Amino acid sequence: MSDFKLWMSQTQASMEDVLAQLLPAAHHVPSRLHDAMRYAVLDGGKRVRPLLVFAAGELVNADVACMQRAAAAVEMIHAYSLVHDDMPPMDNDSLRRGKPTVHVKYDEATALLVGDALQALAFEVLAGAPLQGRPQELVQMLQLLARAAGSQGMCGGQGIDLYGVGQAYTLPQLEMMHILKTGALIRASVLLGAGCGDALSDAQRQQLDHFAKCMGLAFQVVDDVLDEEADTATLGKTAGKDAANHKPTYVSLLGLKGAKEKAAELLAEARAALAPFGERGQRLQQLADYIVDRRH
Amino acid sequence: MSDFKLWMSQTQASMEDVLAQLLPAAHHVPSRLHDAMRYAVLDGGKRVRPLLVFAAGELVNADVACMQRAAAAVEMIHAYSLVHDDMPPMDNDSLRRGKPTVHVKYDEATALLVGDALQALAFEVLAGAPLQGRPQELVQMLQLLARAAGSQGMCGGQGIDLYGVGQAYTLPQLEMMHILKTGALIRASVLLGAGCGDALSDAQRQQLDHFAKCMGLAFQVVDDVLDEEADTATLGKTAGKDAANHKPTYVSLLGLKGAKEKAAELLAEARAALAPFGERGQRLQQLADYIVDRRH
Repeated sequence: MSDFKLWMSQTQASMEDVLAQLLPAAHHVPSRLHDAMRYAVLDGGKRVRPLLVFAAGELVNADVACMQRAAAAVEMIHAYSLVHDDMPPMDNDSLRRGKPTVHVKYDEATALLVGDALQALAFEVLAGAPLQGRPQELVQMLQLLARAAGSQGMCGGQGIDLYGVGQAYTLPQLEMMHILKTGALIRASVLLGAGCGDALSDAQRQQLDHFAKCMGLAFQVVDDVLDEEADTATLGKTAGKDAANHKPTYVSLLGLKGAKEKAAELLAEARAALAPFGERGQRLQQLADYIVDRRH
Repeated sequence: MSDFKLWMSQTQASMEDVLAQLLPAAHHVPSRLHDAMRYAVLDGGKRVRPLLVFAAGELVNADVACMQRAAAAVEMIHAYSLVHDDMPPMDNDSLRRGKPTVHVKYDEATALLVGDALQALAFEVLAGAPLQGRPQELVQMLQLLARAAGSQGMCGGQGIDLYGVGQAYTLPQLEMMHILKTGALIRASVLLGAGCGDALSDAQRQQLDHFAKCMGLAFQVVDDVLDEEADTATLGKTAGKDAANHKPTYVSLLGLKGAKEKAAELLAEARAALAPFGERGQRLQQLADYIVDRRH
């Protein structure tokens, strides 16, 4: 196993422990809600956002306990958004990560509450990050996460997506949607990881921010390519759904070849943005390569 | 107009301005989402939670701009919970504050996103509170709000409520549900207001916390009494709904007279808890009286 693969599987395994500890125990009242919250978060996903937090932390000698909380917070925001997104008024999906979605396994009211409670828990968890000496930075990190999650971040992107079904998008409109819907939280993951260690210069922060923006878009372009190419079993969620719903995708706008070229361009731009960090940026670069080359 | 009534109407009016400024403009993309967020929050409600923030602030010479943000944050959490609570999987209510509920006026997907985005905005707004000199206190306030909103606070109470439909509750079970569902955010309002000024001693903080807990319960007892006595027009929401759903209420457990006595006892206990604050506690005491004596 390569050094990167080993790092990835160790980080994923340790995140599972961290999330299991930070989530309320399933026997705690109301137990159906807590059981469903654990179901929604644990044992699923590639933990791309936590991986970004930890890889970005390597740029700045970040504190491990701080990164764990930052990573758990972004993963909880991500998990809540999937639970709500899967519900009947939104995507009405019955399969997620190869398992029944929360509203199918439990019920719609529980799915609604699971999402709401996970969002609150994300902020509670991040607010408990051990940055005792630098509370002002922690406040800024909380504000960053809130903005990334809200109507001018992830929720805003979901709104644009929702109101765009059946509409003809231009490429800039599609990018704007994804910069918010997926990109905002990807960007927050990178910046929160970097917030857990030594301070960056303004120039470094801008470079890192540019890296994060490129990766946020690349991630979505690759998602669209995989959705076009993969079958449902490999993907663990319903494949070809966006096309069936006449939702615009990078593949529908650029073609399969064009979308793959776009992903490669974004990756090159992201790698270039990391160059000034030298060796310390290696993990983040490996992760970027992995995100663009992944098969599901 | 009494001094209290004047204070109340001025505070309510200024809160309307504050909320209107903090919410994203309706023309900002995605405009349907932002329009619906403003519809959910503005021009409605008695603003009990903001009033509690400002009244508690009088105990500690609180900073006005800080109280405004704290008050807006709790009101946004409250407003989001109403939007989600009204949706078909939960209470399936079509009327709120005399107007169509968000999912009726817009659509269910928008209602889902409105709630999600308002919760994120609440934390963003509070994180921007001007407590530059005391960021550690601000982190604690953010943590307090997150806990009050989450599965061991408001969402937890909603879960207990949800899973309790049709069940026979004992009085302690009903109290536990309301301490979480309504009480947690009422308590947070009082403590956030007190967090915007001079530090309290531990003893004072405990007294204030006890006041807040009594008021949280009293508020719900009065709600149940009003729900039993009032008609839909006065209440601005569908009356008698809990009884029709066989949900346990203070009135169903204690009778109308018993519930009124319970409210009076809780008010007396709340007033006693304020006594050590002397004159500075006057506004909070007037507000407590008002909450218990209100007619809708």
